[in-house]
Amino acid sequence: MSSMIGNTLKISVFGESHGPAIGVTIDGLPPGESMDYDEIKIQMARRAPGADPSSTPRTEPDIPEILSGVLNGRTTGAPLCAVIRNTDTRSGDYDALKRLPRPSHADYPAHVRYGGFQDVRGGGHFSGRLTAPLTFAGTICRQILYRRGILIGGHVLKIGQVTDRPLDECNPDKTLLKRLSEEYFAVILENKKREMQSAIAAAKAQGNSLGGVLEVAACGLPAGVGDPMFGGVENRLAAAVFGIPAVKGVSFGAGFGFADMTGRQANDPWRMENGKIITETNRNGGVLGGITTGMPLIMRAAIKPTPSIAGSQDTVDLISGKNAKTEVKGRHDPCILPRALPVLEAVTAFVLTDLLAQFNLL
Amino acid sequence: MSSMIGNTLKISVFGESHGPAIGVTIDGLPPGESMDYDEIKIQMARRAPGADPSSTPRTEPDIPEILSGVLNGRTTGAPLCAVIRNTDTRSGDYDALKRLPRPSHADYPAHVRYGGFQDVRGGGHFSGRLTAPLTFAGTICRQILYRRGILIGGHVLKIGQVTDRPLDECNPDKTLLKRLSEEYFAVILENKKREMQSAIAAAKAQGNSLGGVLEVAACGLPAGVGDPMFGGVENRLAAAVFGIPAVKGVSFGAGFGFADMTGRQANDPWRMENGKIITETNRNGGVLGGITTGMPLIMRAAIKPTPSIAGSQDTVDLISGKNAKTEVKGRHDPCILPRALPVLEAVTAFVLTDLLAQFNLL
Amino acid sequence: MSSMIGNTLKISVFGESHGPAIGVTIDGLPPGESMDYDEIKIQMARRAPGADPSSTPRTEPDIPEILSGVLNGRTTGAPLCAVIRNTDTRSGDYDALKRLPRPSHADYPAHVRYGGFQDVRGGGHFSGRLTAPLTFAGTICRQILYRRGILIGGHVLKIGQVTDRPLDECNPDKTLLKRLSEEYFAVILENKKREMQSAIAAAKAQGNSLGGVLEVAACGLPAGVGDPMFGGVENRLAAAVFGIPAVKGVSFGAGFGFADMTGRQANDPWRMENGKIITETNRNGGVLGGITTGMPLIMRAAIKPTPSIAGSQDTVDLISGKNAKTEVKGRHDPCILPRALPVLEAVTAFVLTDLLAQFNLL
Amino acid sequence: MSSMIGNTLKISVFGESHGPAIGVTIDGLPPGESMDYDEIKIQMARRAPGADPSSTPRTEPDIPEILSGVLNGRTTGAPLCAVIRNTDTRSGDYDALKRLPRPSHADYPAHVRYGGFQDVRGGGHFSGRLTAPLTFAGTICRQILYRRGILIGGHVLKIGQVTDRPLDECNPDKTLLKRLSEEYFAVILENKKREMQSAIAAAKAQGNSLGGVLEVAACGLPAGVGDPMFGGVENRLAAAVFGIPAVKGVSFGAGFGFADMTGRQANDPWRMENGKIITETNRNGGVLGGITTGMPLIMRAAIKPTPSIAGSQDTVDLISGKNAKTEVKGRHDPCILPRALPVLEAVTAFVLTDLLAQFNLL
Repeated sequence: MSSMIGNTLKISVFGESHGPAIGVTIDGLPPGESMDYDEIKIQMARRAPGADPSSTPRTEPDIPEILSGVLNGRTTGAPLCAVIRNTDTRSGDYDALKRLPRPSHADYPAHVRYGGFQDVRGGGHFSGRLTAPLTFAGTICRQILYRRGILIGGHVLKIGQVTDRPLDECNPDKTLLKRLSEEYFAVILENKKREMQSAIAAAKAQGNSLGGVLEVAACGLPAGVGDPMFGGVENRLAAAVFGIPAVKGVSFGAGFGFADMTGRQANDPWRMENGKIITETNRNGGVLGGITTGMPLIMRAAIKPTPSIAGSQDTVDLISGKNAKTEVKGRHDPCILPRALPVLEAVTAFVLTDLLAQFNLL
Repeated sequence: MSSMIGNTLKISVFGESHGPAIGVTIDGLPPGESMDYDEIKIQMARRAPGADPSSTPRTEPDIPEILSGVLNGRTTGAPLCAVIRNTDTRSGDYDALKRLPRPSHADYPAHVRYGGFQDVRGGGHFSGRLTAPLTFAGTICRQILYRRGILIGGHVLKIGQVTDRPLDECNPDKTLLKRLSEEYFAVILENKKREMQSAIAAAKAQGNSLGGVLEVAACGLPAGVGDPMFGGVENRLAAAVFGIPAVKGVSFGAGFGFADMTGRQANDPWRMENGKIITETNRNGGVLGGITTGMPLIMRAAIKPTPSIAGSQDTVDLISGKNAKTEVKGRHDPCILPRALPVLEAVTAFVLTDLLAQFNLL
Repeated sequence: MSSMIGNTLKISVFGESHGPAIGVTIDGLPPGESMDYDEIKIQMARRAPGADPSSTPRTEPDIPEILSGVLNGRTTGAPLCAVIRNTDTRSGDYDALKRLPRPSHADYPAHVRYGGFQDVRGGGHFSGRLTAPLTFAGTICRQILYRRGILIGGHVLKIGQVTDRPLDECNPDKTLLKRLSEEYFAVILENKKREMQSAIAAAKAQGNSLGGVLEVAACGLPAGVGDPMFGGVENRLAAAVFGIPAVKGVSFGAGFGFADMTGRQANDPWRMENGKIITETNRNGGVLGGITTGMPLIMRAAIKPTPSIAGSQDTVDLISGKNAKTEVKGRHDPCILPRALPVLEAVTAFVLTDLLAQFNLL
Repeated sequence: MSSMIGNTLKISVFGESHGPAIGVTIDGLPPGESMDYDEIKIQMARRAPGADPSSTPRTEPDIPEILSGVLNGRTTGAPLCAVIRNTDTRSGDYDALKRLPRPSHADYPAHVRYGGFQDVRGGGHFSGRLTAPLTFAGTICRQILYRRGILIGGHVLKIGQVTDRPLDECNPDKTLLKRLSEEYFAVILENKKREMQSAIAAAKAQGNSLGGVLEVAACGLPAGVGDPMFGGVENRLAAAVFGIPAVKGVSFGAGFGFADMTGRQANDPWRMENGKIITETNRNGGVLGGITTGMPLIMRAAIKPTPSIAGSQDTVDLISGKNAKTEVKGRHDPCILPRALPVLEAVTAFVLTDLLAQFNLL
């Protein structure tokens, strides 16, 4: 637990936003997997800040240096550690944090948990910056899965009041999914993307921020993968996905929408199609009893609005013990969803690779 | 993983619906905890079928026999194993299952996963019946927490189109919560409960079923509990809660509702109140950065409609490999939410006890 | 940890010597494995007390009742729980234990660990009786391995001053190993066995006890199984084997004998034999760098003399805090090695099955 | 497992002997612990090669760069990652390894395990060089323990035919232990050390190597720490210690010497001394039933002779599948024990810190 997760395949994430470096160790990778550095660059860029007006202008190259586990461009099977140096840090911006915890950030609970010794600069180990090594690790997994015919992709389903068209639950368009999986701010409908961008721009102008919902699919998973009860695909994905900052809800298939369905509407009838067992609908998002059905895995994650907003907010002074005001400084995303999407996809890739490794399906 | 979960406190669940017995081993309980058998009976009864028309008429006493770990009414600190004998089983009802997987049940993925050797009678190890030992284990945890001032309670927030009043996110009424925590089919508003009962009766009359949303709160948790990233309160709760059959979504605080908020609406300002640091709102449901804030933990779970509905449904014949029809027989709940609520509360109690045990707060 | 162990295959052991029952849950068994109840009976009998003068006259049928995970004589893949009722318990014998901890038993550390709430009767959860469920679990694993051509057997290598002939490190005689694996008090050389029996009888006559060394081999393991560093075959076996009461040392191959060798004597040269890569000697006991070499696994365990001896011994009175005397009553083994051997073999079988399951070699 | 281990406190080790870097992430450190860099330097130097004629002349500065988890010289509570760059690597020396596995090295099993993709240069991830990050991690733990009154020290008990005086099992001299804990090639008796050095020099002159036994003690542990069965102090230590290359046996207290004792000789009577419960002897090495007794923990580890010896050795050619000869080149230790001692102490420190963290005793 804590900053390590996984069973057959494990990751250990380290680093603080303004410390010397952040990084990840991936333990249990299959040997002989080739590294596609171009795709790593694409995925790291999708997550990196500064790409468009929706994100913080803070720019970082985020080029991971691989310290182990790769030889001649292929995994050796030994733990792969990659390190990303922190360069563009302005620690001065964050001095008041120790005293005045920001609303809806982890500052205060971390203060209690770590007795004041935690690194508060830029959010320390709680910073969204830690999603860079997560993305790196997941991208390697993504490549491993892709070679086995498993494609992971997703899109921003909802930002504020703007909703994109959901993915086809039974048969997401592979070409579309592939395109989305390489795009910054991936949205299916171009006009919805523009509406989302406008909504973000409006929020930014007011020093405000927006939340939303991400949707991710994994196509090509075989049926019969997963363990019952606590080792189910849903359990494992949720356990990892809640590790992404700002995620406050995770659902599969129709998710909370099941509340509005009857059993007759919700059930997914089985059917033979070209010698393969499929379901006619996929309300369950590819998982029944914790085990894959062979249909696409469909997952959604609720993302809260970035808590770093402009203006004065109520807080307490941890030294004087009195009510106080704080103003969040620094550079921040008015909406984190475009950049959170590749992270969610990466974490999904990691969990599924771990699962398939356990079932010796890699 | 699989049917074991936990860190400092662990459970191992076993049994199949129509096998000799089901049960649970709880490893890591603090020694010296007294057992309140009356409350165990209350909670087991809340989960047991047959209590009202919303549930299956199958009745089972569900009295757990404690085989170890308790002496003179107190925990010894050694693993506590409790066994519940299966009595009222009618295996004949389920003969066709091996051949004709029921839509939206785990039959088919389990068939692939276990190569046809799985016990299909009554759903086998995937049966909702396995929630009886979960409830037992969680009830012991609940008592341990209650002695430390931590109260867990919840209600059926939504069934079909009927929605109960949500719990007060900042200050759930303790008396109300206590009452709900002992009630069968716990709903805050009496009239909403009657509406839900009518909706269930109507669905039942049509051989149909309903889904919904459960809401659970835990009051009295100290601030500063939880680990960063993958060891957070949310990660752990979700990892366990998805082990409850029919759960398809888990959220904390405003959850998917965050999508409709701006940062200004979503942020929870800090405030001193009687020497204690609180938040003015509790959109984050008592958790920030995976760590408790000291505010009530608020969690919601989406429950899909019972897949066992009346009438003919499409399926495939696993032997002939052809499309076929199946009719689900046996006795089933038209709506599982009233009985799923004590299970969700129990699983919550288990996870929080595990967490507090890790922090030596028991 | 605690009373659970394993990775892909896990066990959870429960029970106290004089409580209602002891037992084990095995989670992760491959489905479709047939149960050989005759061999289970043989192995349980090898471990059971009362078989000859070396052991306690306390007799117990030790017939495990299987509560789950088996249908029509085959594993279903769901957790298998088996329970053994405690019958022949004379709790009155143990009353003074709470106050006067027995030398070299766990009484005192358990008292501190569990604050006096532990079940002290018969050693409670620390009793050697808990090895019955371990043996049961391991015997199932043993059968699974045997079907894959992996044979586990062992013998009492040393009791007091009497030493049996060690197993052939490169090529243990399979017929011999099979015979030993079914024998009570398995020793290779018949005359050494008689000498050991005499030594035990002599110790018993003096109210004294003897320790010794057990040696176990596993033949037929493929090369290349195991993880580096902390996931090695040796790490995993040792982590489990130290869970057997009275084990105070574990070694592989030449073990502590390596201290008397030079590198030239200790090295195992590689050689092709009939198209298979073998080593000419097997000083390393079939493991290098934590990974199997394909040669027989050879493990030894040091077993301390039974601490329950006759006569007065020094202790402290935990209530008065003064020095005191205690006399260990009850029925005890003057030498536990004959009965500990099948337990060691069983635990070995469990760990190797877990390992092969992880590598999908079952 | 694999290259990660621990419960409350975890480490993840990475790196290959001739790759860019080796290192370790430590997750779960208590916050606020100050870093004593001088002692880190001392311990790293004790492990480093080149200190005297017993070790390889390969020299490496081995100065770990701390990338995270430390701020202003104190731990933050977030994962601490430290990296050591590999500098003095001569990869050319190892070219034949891929084809001709060295006897008693992990080359061949690793080849099978990793399908030929493993990094064979210098032993890759199996290299003794990986003990540098282990030593670093353990040294931090050592400092944490020392502040709580727990002192870890040890010595080379035996090399070849030369045996040092064992540590006093009941009351190891603290001043002696402290001195040993900072010394390179720590031996209690100066003349025995000289004899060992002579034996090593003689072995080196013949291109041969020597094995032996290390002994480590931990003083100041409270009673009552550890979990029963598989979570015992012995289980955990053994699980970690077998991760140190060349360790082939682990024992506690009298260990394999118990075979030569009767129960009367082996039992440790309890006694009150200055208001504290102690044992008159400490044959059990401070652990009973897996739980600490409050007496010093005494552990021994058997170390095999360095398999890298001079001269031609039999092997197989993995490409042609024929018998072949190999000659181990490169620079090697004729005896690894002096350098393995600080590693064993470090691993012991890590496991005990993990254990005390679990019991909230830090």
